[in-house]
Amino acid sequence: RTLRIGLIPGDGIGREVIPAGRRILESLPSSLNLKFSFVDLEAGYGTFQKTGTALPDKTVETLKNECDGALFGAVSSPSTKVAGYSSPIVALRKKLDLYANVRPVKTTAGNSNGKPIDLVIVRENTEDLYVKEERTTETPEGKVAEAIKRISERASFRISNIAGEIALRRQNIRNGSANPTRDQPMVTITHKSNVLSQTDGLFRETARRALAAEKFSSVFVEEQIVDSMVYKLFRQPEFYDVIVAPNLYGDILSDGAAALVGSLGLVPSANVGDNFAIGEPCHGSAPDIEGKGISNPIATIRSVALMLEFLGEEKAAAQIYAAVDGNLDAAQFLTPDMGGKATTQQVLDDVLKRL
Amino acid sequence: RTLRIGLIPGDGIGREVIPAGRRILESLPSSLNLKFSFVDLEAGYGTFQKTGTALPDKTVETLKNECDGALFGAVSSPSTKVAGYSSPIVALRKKLDLYANVRPVKTTAGNSNGKPIDLVIVRENTEDLYVKEERTTETPEGKVAEAIKRISERASFRISNIAGEIALRRQNIRNGSANPTRDQPMVTITHKSNVLSQTDGLFRETARRALAAEKFSSVFVEEQIVDSMVYKLFRQPEFYDVIVAPNLYGDILSDGAAALVGSLGLVPSANVGDNFAIGEPCHGSAPDIEGKGISNPIATIRSVALMLEFLGEEKAAAQIYAAVDGNLDAAQFLTPDMGGKATTQQVLDDVLKRL
Ligand SMILES: CC(C)[C@H](C(=O)O)[C@@H](O)C(=O)O
Ligand SMILES: CC(C)[C@H](C(=O)O)[C@@H](O)C(=O)O
Repeated sequence: RTLRIGLIPGDGIGREVIPAGRRILESLPSSLNLKFSFVDLEAGYGTFQKTGTALPDKTVETLKNECDGALFGAVSSPSTKVAGYSSPIVALRKKLDLYANVRPVKTTAGNSNGKPIDLVIVRENTEDLYVKEERTTETPEGKVAEAIKRISERASFRISNIAGEIALRRQNIRNGSANPTRDQPMVTITHKSNVLSQTDGLFRETARRALAAEKFSSVFVEEQIVDSMVYKLFRQPEFYDVIVAPNLYGDILSDGAAALVGSLGLVPSANVGDNFAIGEPCHGSAPDIEGKGISNPIATIRSVALMLEFLGEEKAAAQIYAAVDGNLDAAQFLTPDMGGKATTQQVLDDVLKRL
Repeated sequence: RTLRIGLIPGDGIGREVIPAGRRILESLPSSLNLKFSFVDLEAGYGTFQKTGTALPDKTVETLKNECDGALFGAVSSPSTKVAGYSSPIVALRKKLDLYANVRPVKTTAGNSNGKPIDLVIVRENTEDLYVKEERTTETPEGKVAEAIKRISERASFRISNIAGEIALRRQNIRNGSANPTRDQPMVTITHKSNVLSQTDGLFRETARRALAAEKFSSVFVEEQIVDSMVYKLFRQPEFYDVIVAPNLYGDILSDGAAALVGSLGLVPSANVGDNFAIGEPCHGSAPDIEGKGISNPIATIRSVALMLEFLGEEKAAAQIYAAVDGNLDAAQFLTPDMGGKATTQQVLDDVLKRL
């Protein structure tokens, strides 16, 4: 099987980590019978400054017409408001209907201060406040701005359904391993329906309904109000398995979860649609370390694996995860965000050696 | 000076901690020349079940016409949607125009795993998604619900202004103490203007403008996108001083900060308006421990102090804070949420002894 992968480095250290992701794909063992072809694509604030748009049509069309998946690096946000600029990754998620943003957060044996964490945040990726429908009015008392938070039954159902499926799949993997950490798969529904009874209320009810399906009868379903979810995430992260949340809460929770494993530089994500997946490290463009060759490639390498998982290549994914775990547990080649002294290249080489 | 204080225990452990708050006020040293009178008021889910409204007009009118301040316990939220029920504390904040929700989070010498944390979250308390303007439409694809997030220049200005004032006041207190932990007061503006350019953009710009006032020239002003704020709050909480945020982010951040000091049972808040303050522990009604006599009264006792601070009684407040710090540092009488075995009454008695 040959997969065509779009490469969108974006801004800042995106340009340093995406090439590392490509190298991983090119170096997969030939026994897997997987081939890759690549196409370089543009997006980001740099692209906006050059061309007036942060997400050229050509990027979207090429992804739609030619590609099976993609890797997205990071984008810089302008530090003050810039007319006409709008985040290309948010637009891409909607244009390709990548409705699930899947963000696993996991400690490895060598990378845990005690409690083993192994959870995944499944974030709705197309609506909520991210519809970006805003307007501003002038009043005698000054400006008043409003934004729409939109929650639909359809999007809430499909995100909850995929969250349930991910919970089942994780359980299968655990059952096959020597060290299953949990008896029963679990999904935690996050919302704020005590204040937003209609919008978050709809998310909550729909998630309950989706997860009540016969196929999920082995899944334990519980819920947390979002503020309490953040509290519990910090107090007992080892308790959680799959957390499903509307877009904005998912955004906030995944950064919180990343803090628990020590560095955003470790945390991958995949933007997943019905026949497409974009791997994307959770970190930003990190202008402070750009060009120094010390950005952590692990989040991107794991995002490569996550993309492959959702393209049906679970075996290749498992090999990449194992190589990354090997690198982290050995703790010989770690970038500075992890307390080490290695360069991006050294970490990449170490992971490649273990592949 | 005699202050009249409304007592609103609400539901669950609210009924156990509010009497402790009253005892503190009654037991303040007579040298402070402060007297208190009290009026018992109703609100909560229990009230709703009895009377059909969670916030009787009488409660609001009595607070407005007779009281200088109040103490609010906690409310239970129904576990499924209940027609006509709506959170009384959210309504009260708006009806009394208590525009600032002030939530200090602080470790004491005895209660810190290493890094000393001493920050305060200043949460806008009247608008954002808490305007609760929602509607639901039926479409061929199922229900679609929308909520309004409203951000006004007026509310953003006054919350940022009070955040600046709190930063200055905290600095004065630090300068007077033996152990100033920071050179310069700091305010961190939290928003998500990279996605919500108009609403959160307005909050950000207005906060920048408010904090650029001459009187705040000694204040260092920085900003964090909300997801990154959660990450940094976990990674380097000792770095932060005053964090100002729109309503919902403030709600989420304050629970996150509470997790850092070990228990929601320690964290106070005050709902502050121009001439009124309601002290309110950050924890909920905790039905799981209700009636056992083991709820932690510290959050309420600190909320009493915070209320007094905003009613201009800083000296009385300081004495209460010191008594609480004494209790925590001695660590002899702690409730189970803190790993101790003491009852609510024993903790209260210990704090009273130190007053
Ligand atoms: C850059 C920003 C628009 C984006 C988001 O909010 O989705 C980022 O925080 C993320 O989590 O991918
Ligand atoms: C109970 C709930 C409505 C409330 C809020 O969201 O404001 C609570 O979480 C708080 O922080 O005081």
